[in-house]
Amino acid sequence: MTHFLKEFLTPKSIAVYGANNKGAGIGSFQLMGLIVSGFKGKIYPIHLKLDSVMGYKAYKSISDVPEVPDLVIVILPPKVVPQVFEECGEKGVKRIVLISGGFRELGGDRTNTLREEIQKIAKKYGIRFIGPNCLGIYNSWIYPDDPSSALNTAIWEKQQRGYFSIASQSGTLASHIFFDPENLDLGISRSLSLGNEADIDVVDCLEFYKDDEKTKAIGLYIEELKRAKTFLRVAKEITPRKPIITIYVGGSEAAQRAVKSHTGSLAGNAKIYDAAFKEAGVVKTELVTEFLDLARVLTKEIYPKGKRLGIITNSGGPGVMIANHAEKQGLKVPRLSEQLRTELREYAIPTASLKNPIDTTFDMNFQNYYINIPKTLMQSGEIDAIMMYGVFGFQDVLKKLMENERVAQYEDFPDQVKQDLPLEKMLVSPLLKMSKKFSIPVFLINPQNYNSPWSKRIRSTGAILFQYWDRPVRCLAKLCEYSQYRRKMVEKKSP
Amino acid sequence: MTHFLKEFLTPKSIAVYGANNKGAGIGSFQLMGLIVSGFKGKIYPIHLKLDSVMGYKAYKSISDVPEVPDLVIVILPPKVVPQVFEECGEKGVKRIVLISGGFRELGGDRTNTLREEIQKIAKKYGIRFIGPNCLGIYNSWIYPDDPSSALNTAIWEKQQRGYFSIASQSGTLASHIFFDPENLDLGISRSLSLGNEADIDVVDCLEFYKDDEKTKAIGLYIEELKRAKTFLRVAKEITPRKPIITIYVGGSEAAQRAVKSHTGSLAGNAKIYDAAFKEAGVVKTELVTEFLDLARVLTKEIYPKGKRLGIITNSGGPGVMIANHAEKQGLKVPRLSEQLRTELREYAIPTASLKNPIDTTFDMNFQNYYINIPKTLMQSGEIDAIMMYGVFGFQDVLKKLMENERVAQYEDFPDQVKQDLPLEKMLVSPLLKMSKKFSIPVFLINPQNYNSPWSKRIRSTGAILFQYWDRPVRCLAKLCEYSQYRRKMVEKKSP
Repeated sequence: MTHFLKEFLTPKSIAVYGANNKGAGIGSFQLMGLIVSGFKGKIYPIHLKLDSVMGYKAYKSISDVPEVPDLVIVILPPKVVPQVFEECGEKGVKRIVLISGGFRELGGDRTNTLREEIQKIAKKYGIRFIGPNCLGIYNSWIYPDDPSSALNTAIWEKQQRGYFSIASQSGTLASHIFFDPENLDLGISRSLSLGNEADIDVVDCLEFYKDDEKTKAIGLYIEELKRAKTFLRVAKEITPRKPIITIYVGGSEAAQRAVKSHTGSLAGNAKIYDAAFKEAGVVKTELVTEFLDLARVLTKEIYPKGKRLGIITNSGGPGVMIANHAEKQGLKVPRLSEQLRTELREYAIPTASLKNPIDTTFDMNFQNYYINIPKTLMQSGEIDAIMMYGVFGFQDVLKKLMENERVAQYEDFPDQVKQDLPLEKMLVSPLLKMSKKFSIPVFLINPQNYNSPWSKRIRSTGAILFQYWDRPVRCLAKLCEYSQYRRKMVEKKSP
Repeated sequence: MTHFLKEFLTPKSIAVYGANNKGAGIGSFQLMGLIVSGFKGKIYPIHLKLDSVMGYKAYKSISDVPEVPDLVIVILPPKVVPQVFEECGEKGVKRIVLISGGFRELGGDRTNTLREEIQKIAKKYGIRFIGPNCLGIYNSWIYPDDPSSALNTAIWEKQQRGYFSIASQSGTLASHIFFDPENLDLGISRSLSLGNEADIDVVDCLEFYKDDEKTKAIGLYIEELKRAKTFLRVAKEITPRKPIITIYVGGSEAAQRAVKSHTGSLAGNAKIYDAAFKEAGVVKTELVTEFLDLARVLTKEIYPKGKRLGIITNSGGPGVMIANHAEKQGLKVPRLSEQLRTELREYAIPTASLKNPIDTTFDMNFQNYYINIPKTLMQSGEIDAIMMYGVFGFQDVLKKLMENERVAQYEDFPDQVKQDLPLEKMLVSPLLKMSKKFSIPVFLINPQNYNSPWSKRIRSTGAILFQYWDRPVRCLAKLCEYSQYRRKMVEKKSP
């Protein structure tokens, strides 16, 4: 049986109220998004005055549309929305995305009445609707065989297809945070901007994502849980199989005030929420960058067995800082055994330090850095996760230097630079294989820009790459916490 | 009188021990850096076998060099270093940068003896030296009239010239962290990688930067303070005029172990250090990203009068998250007075929320967003700093959408998009002027990539731009703390 939200995400025909040809209003943005993302079905603009909208024949009323559209998107002033719902109901429409704001979040009797009114009409006709006050929906899998097309009224920029699915009470958290190319490595599956949840809520989304084969990890932004008990029950069913990452913001006076203005919700007691999330194995964060990092890392499905971190660097300072931060975030940075250090010595120059952090110092032996040292660590059983700082491409640096006329004359440049070997395949890919085999996550950190040639090469292998060493430490600590929960749950089930 | 460190940074001739024509060793990297960065003085490679190095005539011994070089850079195995120091001393050399590692940080009697030996030789000849175990030096102001050239053995990539000066016991913190174009907006003045500080230490650097007109803010990475009392005395003299940002890492067992391996230091008690830094007005951080953010922000020299944050967004979720995070970091997010809200109402659409966070919702009136609302806030006296999320360019988004054949046909596109007006000069520049006038820092946050067209335009005005809203909150909290200290000190002096 298909979940009703899947039907929202795979329409063959869409009617749009509120788009025009001006291109500057949110209604036009929605329709443009739909067009540009490659929607292949029928589009029916509904407009009282225009004959055509963005080249599509426009209809004065939905009753004139030659079929019952699978989905209707509404971007109109609140006061006319009940009338539109009524018309849609009469037409036989079953699914509406109500983008318009101006209902509960403004407070006051009038807007609450409006909300109740549309709820009543929806019930009468059996309409399910998303919103009001939301930003739209996104589905990268609407055409499974065509990854270049998507259903998209929300994100405005092409995303990499993947397995991270979002349900959010904030439109921004469902869309704009994915502008950043640094996060293109994070493949998006579905995104549902829920707004004020007058009908469909975050629990509906969880129930859909639970058995959705295109969802490997779930991201939520929550200001209020209207069905807290059901949420926790469903979450508990999901988290042993799929991680749930939740931004829940509460606890500060200003945040409460902002929540009230935003979705009209009363934010709950943060401590109670925290405890409930913890019990249900939900990974909670208050930082948007952490949310993105966790999404990227958790969709890789490599779960460490414990919290012991091995640090490999070619530089002392970052090693010190990573070790310090890691311990403060609850990770362990164990001193390596004497036997292990003896084994490692074979792959290091005399100035190297091997106690963990491992500091290889200035050594151009990439085979040791990327393969032999990590492999020895993984085989030792002394660590559960690895962080490597200083993975930058000396190739790039040398090439850049070689642009200089004088430098370009050297005859003795190292072969690795001159031959332009696919080092990422020779070094990073084998590292990833080991990482999977041992279930030991490896985070790489390259101080060069994320779009530098070497960083791009690393990313092409599917590796997890960071630019500085603050975010990966926090992220790893939460990954380890979730992994611990997951392992406990799996053990419970198979005694 | 010129500080002796200034002489290190403005040599007219440099001799280099340890470079060859292979391009892969650290010695060659140093020389290549020197060449590529545009050093205009004489270069004398010293090499036992080669006749020329990178096209420069090589000398078997420094005694053969036709003049006394202003600076000598040494990258050789430790055991030959005393002999080199002896030769340099006899030649009359007064300044050495000793890159080589392998002294104190490896532990053991032999290396400690070596260290003492070179200290003794240096003293005998009046040589001052940086290192050992360091990465070099950087000076963007060596040729004041030529910003395209620099003295650079350390950073390997051209930096924007500016007023942030660094002294670091880690080479990475003195160099590699500046690879990122996101931080190109941070102009670098000088950078000194100090290594193990066998002679010149961080206090020497502070004394130099104190009266250096090219230094507006100072960044330090410290594992150990060899002259703690002097450090604090000098720091206290500096911080009422120039901010000092310090990464000091201690307190965790693994960090102590790493510090010992890195610079051979014994990390001190973190609590004592923290208290001392606080007393001296030194801004301390343990995060590299925070270090970079603070550097960028503090060189702007806009100091808020208090900790009251005004938040302007066009989206509820980020407003909630910023408010929550801000209060947890010690900032205040006051509810705005009724009178102020009445004033603001004039510049907002009905769905907007004006209680702080201000959520303008979907409104394309840029004049209100960038100028009228911030100005009204600034004039009110109710806030001390402003954070604006959602400053992205609808222009860019629309332009991208217009690449679509169908969308491109619209006739009614807004003029702002079609005419490609210099909106950054019309909107952001006036905002910056107000920010300076009122001494109210404004942090802009654009979810689009830092190198997106609109982000680049914003950056071109000199504005402080962030991509997500985690880092700016932390950064602002520390800016406010420093500002409070600074104002207190200034008041003390002028009663």
